[in-house]
Amino acid sequence: MGISISSAFDSGNIEVVDQPAPDHVRLRIRPDAGGEFLQWFHFRLAGARGRAVRLDIIGLEKSAYPGGWPDYRARVSDDRETWVQADTTYDKAAAGGTLTIRVTPRYDALWCAYFAPYSLERHHDLIARTAMQPGVIATVLGHSLDGRPIDCLELGEGPRTVWLYARQHPGESMAEWWIEGALAELTDAASPLARTLRARARFHIVPNMNPDGSFRGYLRTNAAGANLNREWANPTPERSPEVLFVRNRMDETGVDFALDVHGDEALPHVFIAGFEGIPGVTNAQLDLLARYQASLCRHSADFQTKVGYPVTPAGRANLAMSTNQVAHRFGCVSATLEMPFKDALELPDAGQGWSPARSRHLGRACLAALADIIDDLR
Amino acid sequence: MGISISSAFDSGNIEVVDQPAPDHVRLRIRPDAGGEFLQWFHFRLAGARGRAVRLDIIGLEKSAYPGGWPDYRARVSDDRETWVQADTTYDKAAAGGTLTIRVTPRYDALWCAYFAPYSLERHHDLIARTAMQPGVIATVLGHSLDGRPIDCLELGEGPRTVWLYARQHPGESMAEWWIEGALAELTDAASPLARTLRARARFHIVPNMNPDGSFRGYLRTNAAGANLNREWANPTPERSPEVLFVRNRMDETGVDFALDVHGDEALPHVFIAGFEGIPGVTNAQLDLLARYQASLCRHSADFQTKVGYPVTPAGRANLAMSTNQVAHRFGCVSATLEMPFKDALELPDAGQGWSPARSRHLGRACLAALADIIDDLR
Amino acid sequence: MGISISSAFDSGNIEVVDQPAPDHVRLRIRPDAGGEFLQWFHFRLAGARGRAVRLDIIGLEKSAYPGGWPDYRARVSDDRETWVQADTTYDKAAAGGTLTIRVTPRYDALWCAYFAPYSLERHHDLIARTAMQPGVIATVLGHSLDGRPIDCLELGEGPRTVWLYARQHPGESMAEWWIEGALAELTDAASPLARTLRARARFHIVPNMNPDGSFRGYLRTNAAGANLNREWANPTPERSPEVLFVRNRMDETGVDFALDVHGDEALPHVFIAGFEGIPGVTNAQLDLLARYQASLCRHSADFQTKVGYPVTPAGRANLAMSTNQVAHRFGCVSATLEMPFKDALELPDAGQGWSPARSRHLGRACLAALADIIDDLR
Amino acid sequence: MGISISSAFDSGNIEVVDQPAPDHVRLRIRPDAGGEFLQWFHFRLAGARGRAVRLDIIGLEKSAYPGGWPDYRARVSDDRETWVQADTTYDKAAAGGTLTIRVTPRYDALWCAYFAPYSLERHHDLIARTAMQPGVIATVLGHSLDGRPIDCLELGEGPRTVWLYARQHPGESMAEWWIEGALAELTDAASPLARTLRARARFHIVPNMNPDGSFRGYLRTNAAGANLNREWANPTPERSPEVLFVRNRMDETGVDFALDVHGDEALPHVFIAGFEGIPGVTNAQLDLLARYQASLCRHSADFQTKVGYPVTPAGRANLAMSTNQVAHRFGCVSATLEMPFKDALELPDAGQGWSPARSRHLGRACLAALADIIDDLR
Repeated sequence: MGISISSAFDSGNIEVVDQPAPDHVRLRIRPDAGGEFLQWFHFRLAGARGRAVRLDIIGLEKSAYPGGWPDYRARVSDDRETWVQADTTYDKAAAGGTLTIRVTPRYDALWCAYFAPYSLERHHDLIARTAMQPGVIATVLGHSLDGRPIDCLELGEGPRTVWLYARQHPGESMAEWWIEGALAELTDAASPLARTLRARARFHIVPNMNPDGSFRGYLRTNAAGANLNREWANPTPERSPEVLFVRNRMDETGVDFALDVHGDEALPHVFIAGFEGIPGVTNAQLDLLARYQASLCRHSADFQTKVGYPVTPAGRANLAMSTNQVAHRFGCVSATLEMPFKDALELPDAGQGWSPARSRHLGRACLAALADIIDDLR
Repeated sequence: MGISISSAFDSGNIEVVDQPAPDHVRLRIRPDAGGEFLQWFHFRLAGARGRAVRLDIIGLEKSAYPGGWPDYRARVSDDRETWVQADTTYDKAAAGGTLTIRVTPRYDALWCAYFAPYSLERHHDLIARTAMQPGVIATVLGHSLDGRPIDCLELGEGPRTVWLYARQHPGESMAEWWIEGALAELTDAASPLARTLRARARFHIVPNMNPDGSFRGYLRTNAAGANLNREWANPTPERSPEVLFVRNRMDETGVDFALDVHGDEALPHVFIAGFEGIPGVTNAQLDLLARYQASLCRHSADFQTKVGYPVTPAGRANLAMSTNQVAHRFGCVSATLEMPFKDALELPDAGQGWSPARSRHLGRACLAALADIIDDLR
Repeated sequence: MGISISSAFDSGNIEVVDQPAPDHVRLRIRPDAGGEFLQWFHFRLAGARGRAVRLDIIGLEKSAYPGGWPDYRARVSDDRETWVQADTTYDKAAAGGTLTIRVTPRYDALWCAYFAPYSLERHHDLIARTAMQPGVIATVLGHSLDGRPIDCLELGEGPRTVWLYARQHPGESMAEWWIEGALAELTDAASPLARTLRARARFHIVPNMNPDGSFRGYLRTNAAGANLNREWANPTPERSPEVLFVRNRMDETGVDFALDVHGDEALPHVFIAGFEGIPGVTNAQLDLLARYQASLCRHSADFQTKVGYPVTPAGRANLAMSTNQVAHRFGCVSATLEMPFKDALELPDAGQGWSPARSRHLGRACLAALADIIDDLR
Repeated sequence: MGISISSAFDSGNIEVVDQPAPDHVRLRIRPDAGGEFLQWFHFRLAGARGRAVRLDIIGLEKSAYPGGWPDYRARVSDDRETWVQADTTYDKAAAGGTLTIRVTPRYDALWCAYFAPYSLERHHDLIARTAMQPGVIATVLGHSLDGRPIDCLELGEGPRTVWLYARQHPGESMAEWWIEGALAELTDAASPLARTLRARARFHIVPNMNPDGSFRGYLRTNAAGANLNREWANPTPERSPEVLFVRNRMDETGVDFALDVHGDEALPHVFIAGFEGIPGVTNAQLDLLARYQASLCRHSADFQTKVGYPVTPAGRANLAMSTNQVAHRFGCVSATLEMPFKDALELPDAGQGWSPARSRHLGRACLAALADIIDDLR
């Protein structure tokens, strides 16, 4: 039996280019709608039990983040629950940039992905399970271009308003694992953290802002090819309804604190990007952001503030990005949380690298840091 | 918040026609490729917590089996694990045949389907889990028109050859629940039944012969609009590769016993259809089939032989159907197992009707009946 | 750190004799009340990670069944869930009969027992879980000498009366694993077997007739040193209240079918002992017993009828034994089911030998065989 | 069927005095060895499904903490997993002090206890599970008077030495639930907190210092009637071997931080008692303790510092108590953590009151607080 590669499933993405040898397959990533971005891959390798297989994903110098490939290790899984790092190398000079993954599958089927996937089935399980918890309301803010609901979970009875939203970029699946961790904590009746936060704020949580891109196996865009995190200034029903619905609902609720959860392809660290460059930014806003980051450092040794994006100069913020738009629009604290696709070097894990479990832990830690400043929001 | 209906997910199928009142939605089923068949539906209803909602699915006199709707009850689920029967009525005279489902959802989201769905994600979990069991080989017989693998699980070390295959008709999801039950038994190291059977035969098990139709939310056809169970005489790579690959592999292995697992839309019973009408049928074949059915009666009170399809007269069998083709081609015992979408009247269950759990039990019972005749196969 | 042996827990039994070398410990079994019987052992070995340890249990020619030791293999567990067979030999000439168990523990603690234990905690979990199932009544038939309840679970709405009872001999823990399997089946709402049986009979199930002996780590007696299966002719409140309470309740309900579940120390087989020697035995009784055994052969390849106890000549039955007493007293079908402590040679398993999982499967099979004859009981 | 009360199981304790009416039972608690202390109860009530039962526990003005009964609510469970608060009142004038528990059991068996029990079986499961984790060593520090091992779990590779020990007072079962939470965190490979702490310290964790008292259903003493937390100045092999073994091992390892985990019968709060009164106490010690408490306040809203025991004046500490002895002996930070048997009024929960789940959360929070000061220990 020969090797079989397939990706025709929820969030799958790969195409076979050719097979230079029985145990060597060359692959390429199908780009997102619009053709601009490609980076996410997710496929099943079958028929290779016990064989040393070489998988080359080629043409990656044209991927969204060529800088994401050096030192990156692909994730593989036998059981679709535990994802471990595979032997992976990158050669920018070969075939337009080639990522080589070498695996010797233990069983007849092996799943391989850019990061542990979070399927739309799992998303629906999360909505179902959470909607059944006491005090939770599950709403639909609107529908995506492909007709998928933009689900929002509301809970908490306090006066402040907190928004947590994830997967504007659908390939950053760690963002929904993070949401799963945050929701597990917030719906744990025995947790003093959950009870503290729910007494102080109402939470609006969007586990997946881009279900179409997620289902289609995209990295960065929705079905119209829009990068949702560049649509917050002028979202439109035709191009970015997902953003429009969320922003409209924010206008109704107001926002005191918002976290936009992402993955970063290049940097091997967990970090936060703020809104320093928005017009009229206040010291109060910046101070709360600084305190939030300092608190998060204490709550999670996976988080750090040394490495991150350069700070945007005053007045130069791109208001099409959600963190800037929200901080500006509501005069509140807003932040973009970035987790790595690579490992996080503060506490490296050669086995799994950055992982669903660590994303979930970080979700809890981000809530703990929020509790430290929540009384001073507004 | 108003009602939101969505079906843009694995095996989803519904379209909103209109909403005559806030709590009354009219729906229709999108037909399979080819436009000939429609019957399967699967959607999520959101925004209706605590409200008495009326869902009308219209135009059903043109569905594949209009006789399936009287006395049928739709399945609904809060948690996507437990599916119960909803208040359902059918009026053949209204709007071209209207199935009315009345629900008052307990939570904000409710899933509704023709039968408890078996998603492609769950299929991959089944393949992964089973492929990790000792003595199991997972092979790919070929790929569907949409590029999905036709997965086959092989196990057992005995001299005889048994084929179990399911979901030629993708909307008959109970067939894959049945496979799940059969595989659970066959891979249970402590089961004397499993050990007996594995010592006597090699099993070839295809959990889902029609992954494209399953994923697309079809009742009866593959991506080309082909009813796979009418393709066994002359399967082609263009129209029915799924059948071609399975039949080719059967030609390699030979077949001593085959079971083709289905659901029947109309009859409220579990029953078997045989191959009486094939040319050259032998008394030995017919006797083994009769013994198998008698044995299955003893092993499962859910099974019966009183109600079923009319027996085809000698020589009049449609060899395009798998049971006839296989019995004829291999001179073996072959059978079509039918489970109901309605309840099974032998042991009716007002709560769940026929269910995944009962399908799994039947999978085990069918193996027990096989053990009773296996020494006499060939 | 040196080796630590402890058994001061639920069903524990061992005493350290001496330690001839750091990795060699000599042990003996504390006898049951009355001093007559000893065979059950259960202890924890700690402090021996990675060391090749020799454990000698001495003096076993005075154990209840010296014939049980040859070809027997002790069970060991790291996690207290999975019990596997250890390297075990028996030398009848050494130190009055020595069983030598050789283990190299993978972790710091290893549990070792004559058979996978079934603790009183697990018993209470079983009662709690089952008592919460629809249609189940949990009654207390009376209390043991140590004040423990004799729990009885009742279910089913049919006209016949079936009694299943286990662990008259407390060290035969497989008997309660068997009960767990039978109860899992009988309380499975989706099982056609359960629904068939519950419609035809009322079941009275005593998972543990001898909780005192179980908790004290005995093989064969209750707290007064009584072998309960020799007390059925004249049970007394002082010596055998456990039997008295069960027999009294049987007098109230009548009995159509009874199964007394046991383990046999010597024979490596599953078998049944009947009531052939009771006065006035009828052909109808014997015929049903024969049919039951034949049916059980079909339902479980672990069961057989070739090897067993010699049949008692007509009129020579010991009516102090429950199977004889019950068959005689109620003119019904009654049987003693024996499972091995050794492996069952019909389908040997070098890893686990006879096991909890196989006992549970047998529990189900015995119910399936009962369904085959139940309509002819009375 | 009448009511049946039983307590002849792991950690059971109750005696029936009389039964003034069919649904009214009077009970009393069997005292600990030595006869001085009684407070813990744990029993099963059977035969009362659907009946409004009144249970009076009398003679409680002679219990260890009569002040523990007002505002206390007994815990009851159907499934032995979830324990909820029952309708409970205390009348100090009736029958020498009567606690009246009123329940209407939903099922045939109901378990009732002073607090959710933590059985010795569960303890062994905890040892087995934890001993199998990477980097964990399970040692036996010695054996109790009844021959039970004093289990100690070691993990972590850092230079500092942390001791966590629980259940000197066996009836304070929340202490072992706390340990379960702490161990779950420390053995979670994805937890940055665990990885931080394990890199900085070696942990010595004694989940249960008093297994004999636990198994016997005592509140406060070991098998010799010794209150172990009054034995730390001069522990002896005859009277308090449990303390002697732990203290000896501490002498070998040294101690930088120690937490002695308890439950308090009277105060409805979580709090810490320190070592202020020890001779030669240093400001550095006291400052670290203060910082630890302040940090714990931030990490758990269930913890507080307003209510607690009076601070012992300088030089007046009882060095027979472990916290004082350890702080004095090792010049380190040491604390007694107290959780309530009543609810914790900071975040009251009418359903479960203080609970296993909240104890587990607190275990995690106490580790998080430790991480805040660990770099300054020594």
